[in-house]
Amino acid sequence: MTERYFLELAYHGKAYHGWQIQENALSIQAIVEDWLSKITGERIRVTASGRTDAGVHAERQVIHADLPDSSDSRNLMYRLNAVLPPDIAVKSVVRTVPEAHARFSACSRSYCYKIHRKKNPFLPGLSHFVPGPLDSDRINEACRYLLGEKDFESFSKIKTSVSNFRCNITEAYWLDEGDRCFFNITANRFLRGMVRAIVGGLLEIGKGNLTGEDFNRIIEFRDRKKAGKAAPACGLYLTDVKYPAGIFIDNYLD
Amino acid sequence: MTERYFLELAYHGKAYHGWQIQENALSIQAIVEDWLSKITGERIRVTASGRTDAGVHAERQVIHADLPDSSDSRNLMYRLNAVLPPDIAVKSVVRTVPEAHARFSACSRSYCYKIHRKKNPFLPGLSHFVPGPLDSDRINEACRYLLGEKDFESFSKIKTSVSNFRCNITEAYWLDEGDRCFFNITANRFLRGMVRAIVGGLLEIGKGNLTGEDFNRIIEFRDRKKAGKAAPACGLYLTDVKYPAGIFIDNYLD
Repeated sequence: MTERYFLELAYHGKAYHGWQIQENALSIQAIVEDWLSKITGERIRVTASGRTDAGVHAERQVIHADLPDSSDSRNLMYRLNAVLPPDIAVKSVVRTVPEAHARFSACSRSYCYKIHRKKNPFLPGLSHFVPGPLDSDRINEACRYLLGEKDFESFSKIKTSVSNFRCNITEAYWLDEGDRCFFNITANRFLRGMVRAIVGGLLEIGKGNLTGEDFNRIIEFRDRKKAGKAAPACGLYLTDVKYPAGIFIDNYLD
Repeated sequence: MTERYFLELAYHGKAYHGWQIQENALSIQAIVEDWLSKITGERIRVTASGRTDAGVHAERQVIHADLPDSSDSRNLMYRLNAVLPPDIAVKSVVRTVPEAHARFSACSRSYCYKIHRKKNPFLPGLSHFVPGPLDSDRINEACRYLLGEKDFESFSKIKTSVSNFRCNITEAYWLDEGDRCFFNITANRFLRGMVRAIVGGLLEIGKGNLTGEDFNRIIEFRDRKKAGKAAPACGLYLTDVKYPAGIFIDNYLD
């Protein structure tokens, strides 16, 4: 017999070709499944709230797995952390109702895109370096065009298997904190490459190459080619995934 | 004609065999001298407040150099940052009186040793991971044995060219901030490997393997062999070097 568990993960994306298992490429999913299988002695498959692309980080990714019902959550977390590489950590293991699903039960996902404005030897790989002037007020004004349920095909990868491009963005704001900037965005769902494409557009606004109205027209055009260059993966973090509280049976957060 | 300048540097130490130029090993000093020479068109030598060992970071290292008197501090900083690798940054360039010396004029140096207590995929290389119980109160109590002018031969590298081991430690405290710990120490001077050896001893106190009195006896014994294992370089940061204000001619901090 098995029971369903949610595992909260954090990972540094640099060494991986994204979350999802692929042929001939190192993925976070493959490593987590391998170690869960070795520890439990059974072939374990996991499902994430959503894939993260190559090089993208997660401060909080949530996955589900069906584990032998004798599993001790706390012990499992310690054992996994001891064997997983230093760039993948398990933050919690929580038992859920059997029908809880890391992807389909999720109410919202949040991402943060991190930027630094002054050369800093400790941030490469963790934040995108953008020297030169950047008008945060103009960026924040443009953020309001993102809010609400809209068709975001403009900010989707051209090669995509998705046919529905509608996303409901409930939060989108740009924080300016001295030499750092943080773009925070929350939606019910995201399209592939969407946050990085949005940040690419917002940076053009900040540099004065695009107006907020231009940005709004890009959204309305639904044409990826108009949205400009996507921001690099190193600045992007999946920061949160929210679920209905009712799906959790016991709650263990160290 | 030349004028003397102080340059404030930050660097991530991982890729380097320390600050000081060595045969057949990559040093921060060699890279900085090479680029300063290329930019000014003259052979430039630099002198640091002190060497940092292989793998040790600097949030603020100060060096001096004699540069052509036509040098524009702000322009020099931008040009250097553009060519120096991402893990070395120039934070400021300031003109000083000719007799100012990065090493001999320094009144004090400060180091911070950074520790994390929970696995965190974003901290390897930037902080030393110490899982398991650690009694910060006991560590802080032991810190008082460090204060004052004492002979710290116990915490010096065995192979050293120094004959005077006296250092005046004016500040030494352990901060416990949730999953992070920070040991801050300031002295007029430090011996080679001293901070890492001290942190190694403090960690033994925190784990209950050593008492504060044991630690005090280690200092009094002046015997490196009794001090135990040094903490790894990845957690150590040179954070500040203080100078008399009178040595600075103009002050430019961006």
